[in-house]
Amino acid sequence: MNTPPPTPEDPRETAPGELDAVMERAAAAAPLLAALAPGGRARLLWAVAEALDTAADDLVPLAREEAHYPEARCRGELGRTTFQLRLFADVLEDGAYLEAMVDPADPDWGTPRPDVRRLLVPLGPVVVFGASNFPFAFSTAGGDSASALAAGCPVVVKAHPGHPRLARRTAEVVTGALAGAGAPEGAFGLVEGVEAGRLAVLHPLTRAVGFTGSIPGGRALFDLAVSRPDPIPFYGELGSVNPVFVTRAAATARGGEILAGYAESANLGSGQFCTKPGVLFLPEGTGLDALAADFAGRAAAPLLNDRVVGGFARGLDTLAGHPATEVLVRGVADGDGSWSPSLLRTGLDALLEHSETLLEECFGPATLVVTYSDERRLLEAAGVLQGQLTVTVHGEEDDAIAPALLALGASVAGRVVWNGWPTGVAVTHAMTHGGPYPATTAPLHTSVGSTAIRRFLRPVTYQSVPDGLLPEALRDANPLNVPRSRNGGLPAV
Amino acid sequence: MNTPPPTPEDPRETAPGELDAVMERAAAAAPLLAALAPGGRARLLWAVAEALDTAADDLVPLAREEAHYPEARCRGELGRTTFQLRLFADVLEDGAYLEAMVDPADPDWGTPRPDVRRLLVPLGPVVVFGASNFPFAFSTAGGDSASALAAGCPVVVKAHPGHPRLARRTAEVVTGALAGAGAPEGAFGLVEGVEAGRLAVLHPLTRAVGFTGSIPGGRALFDLAVSRPDPIPFYGELGSVNPVFVTRAAATARGGEILAGYAESANLGSGQFCTKPGVLFLPEGTGLDALAADFAGRAAAPLLNDRVVGGFARGLDTLAGHPATEVLVRGVADGDGSWSPSLLRTGLDALLEHSETLLEECFGPATLVVTYSDERRLLEAAGVLQGQLTVTVHGEEDDAIAPALLALGASVAGRVVWNGWPTGVAVTHAMTHGGPYPATTAPLHTSVGSTAIRRFLRPVTYQSVPDGLLPEALRDANPLNVPRSRNGGLPAV
Repeated sequence: MNTPPPTPEDPRETAPGELDAVMERAAAAAPLLAALAPGGRARLLWAVAEALDTAADDLVPLAREEAHYPEARCRGELGRTTFQLRLFADVLEDGAYLEAMVDPADPDWGTPRPDVRRLLVPLGPVVVFGASNFPFAFSTAGGDSASALAAGCPVVVKAHPGHPRLARRTAEVVTGALAGAGAPEGAFGLVEGVEAGRLAVLHPLTRAVGFTGSIPGGRALFDLAVSRPDPIPFYGELGSVNPVFVTRAAATARGGEILAGYAESANLGSGQFCTKPGVLFLPEGTGLDALAADFAGRAAAPLLNDRVVGGFARGLDTLAGHPATEVLVRGVADGDGSWSPSLLRTGLDALLEHSETLLEECFGPATLVVTYSDERRLLEAAGVLQGQLTVTVHGEEDDAIAPALLALGASVAGRVVWNGWPTGVAVTHAMTHGGPYPATTAPLHTSVGSTAIRRFLRPVTYQSVPDGLLPEALRDANPLNVPRSRNGGLPAV
Repeated sequence: MNTPPPTPEDPRETAPGELDAVMERAAAAAPLLAALAPGGRARLLWAVAEALDTAADDLVPLAREEAHYPEARCRGELGRTTFQLRLFADVLEDGAYLEAMVDPADPDWGTPRPDVRRLLVPLGPVVVFGASNFPFAFSTAGGDSASALAAGCPVVVKAHPGHPRLARRTAEVVTGALAGAGAPEGAFGLVEGVEAGRLAVLHPLTRAVGFTGSIPGGRALFDLAVSRPDPIPFYGELGSVNPVFVTRAAATARGGEILAGYAESANLGSGQFCTKPGVLFLPEGTGLDALAADFAGRAAAPLLNDRVVGGFARGLDTLAGHPATEVLVRGVADGDGSWSPSLLRTGLDALLEHSETLLEECFGPATLVVTYSDERRLLEAAGVLQGQLTVTVHGEEDDAIAPALLALGASVAGRVVWNGWPTGVAVTHAMTHGGPYPATTAPLHTSVGSTAIRRFLRPVTYQSVPDGLLPEALRDANPLNVPRSRNGGLPAV
């Protein structure tokens, strides 16, 4: 009911033989893409970014129709997507991402040491499963595709069924731009359908998988990836409730402002962000009337698709029906896949006791307020919180509890936010969009920011290889001007 | 027959309750170890290195008895082990391993950018399974333990049953040195027995696993690690045949010297190195008599333990009984677990056809020579070689085939060696001891060299956190003098 009516060609299922052909083209492209100097690949990324920007008037209406987002949101997200492609182009031109190291032979080293030189090389074809909630920035030409292409890996996207026509049109734009810029054929491909996705994860030529989506869906694909005769890295970004802790001092000093900010962040995009703050710890006695009025006053907005609607309704029923919760605002479904926000409340003891149910992600416009009396007992949440993308602390600088809450955040999450909001992930170098399971399946990595490229690269060391036979990035004269460390020192050009 | 007679206390099995206690002590130590400034942890590593060196006369006799290695090998390996600990101490004092990044707020960035700062933090308790063939350098206080401790992760070692007494004594020395240097209790522990090992991988408090050993053993534990409700990183170094390609030009120019070097490397430590070159590609017409005489002239030497003896005998039977192989030298077992070297031959076509059997690792003193006529057809090996720790090329600098063979090496292996030998892994910054599966279960990483620390660290980003509440490494004044990148630039202090 909530997705556009299927066009004659939907849904499509890529046949196994066609999947094989796509994967073989990707594998054939892999050494050619890897052999391009970083600057050459930077030009490919620029070309894709330019083409996507140019095609905005084609792409945005499809996104509006299929993802039910307003125009401004779609244009903004497309801008973020092309910004990201250009950021990776900069990363390539800089060259430090290669982590090139030169350790000349050293007879006095203490253990035998011939000349050894190291750099990172692309893993090979990467299969990308995009997310429904970011039809541009985390989908067909999103962060996983951009970082894998930047690394020199061909990309095969499994189109998200929530926006099939946008996925196809985006893939056409990307493929055309790559071809025009001289990329090898097969550097980018698109497949469709659940079974094609499964087979792509299992395909012998696939070397890694990027995924953004739900815990059950992501875990099923992760299980496939690690069950292969040759297990491959699976970078899944799954689920997170993104807890927000408000200290007593902060609530006293600026409670109203914090609650207004919270309501805005939690309901942005109808709560359909992986960084949506879903659990709010507040001191007892904080007036919730204004927050409830804010939630109650927000109009219903369409959710992404039937699957999201179904999952949200079930999750909300579970939370609302739990004996430990009190419903402050019960959101309303308009029968057309739209929901207005819901607000529920529980106490800290109840949360600690029923954490498995109450801390399950409810993807959509719902918030659980957890009230506490003893601030120090907030730290007990560390024992029940699973891995998170973010933890947010609202406190005062001289709050006695603040250092411990920030440490709690760092112990369970990939990003710790102070007096701000987790939605709106900055695309920059120092960003981490990741965290321990189930936030992601690969806690060492991020899927946003320039270090996301590291997921698709592996180290190779050359031992005693003559200068003329070394990769250019490792030759004595450093013809590519790549920053390199020498004898373990800091990288320099 | 081949391991020392069990003492009254062998074999030991750590009871599940005791394992729980060890893991709980490790988890309690984790935040304390993480909170030590890098320099403080460097002092711990130095103390462990000093204590192990001081205890050499205790430890070496145990290693000789349990691993059946000569005195010099044992002393050399202990030296490598303490060198490694000191190298990681240097890495900590340098601080670049933290990958600290500072991106100040920037209203002109193109997408919203608050102040974000990133560094790497320890994963938490790490379980280490040592190898039998390096009772010091890849076992109780070996590379995995050293790099995990350096990262700030408590270590729980599952003692290798091939050297239980050495494992216990080493653990005593390590634990004593850590306590003396002020490490938190629980920073290092030892458990014993197959079941305790399984339970340690599955234990809820375990955050990562390091493993060096066989493909079947490692894969079984990998499968456990990824089957957990919360899958954890499993760094397994499993198997590799470490192919050596000799071009026609090289064989013509210095065939005798190459074959003599090969025999030495392949039979070092009775072929019981993970980097043992096991498959040697030679041009047809290369005289094999001298190589056969060399192999035949080498005395039998004891293998590590019964399991290695059994696996080697089965592997050799399979190779020798295969219709596509010819036995040039059949090694002899002396009935006491000693074997003399074996040399077999096949052709390139046969290898390509029967690669699954002929390219299976035969851990011990056996070599398969693969003769070829058309040098260009060597590149077809890329289609049948699984992931390798090393590929070695012996060629001439102007060999037309050399660049393609080096590229083949980089495409399947973590290290490419030119006109040298893969045994003797240099402990240095630019080393990679790793590779695609089954060389390892984690192709992005190395288990030797200073970047091995990266396996046990994950990124955390702090957003808009006031200076006084940031980790010291990220504060404006940089009180720890940690190299940091700013706005994506190169790291500097």
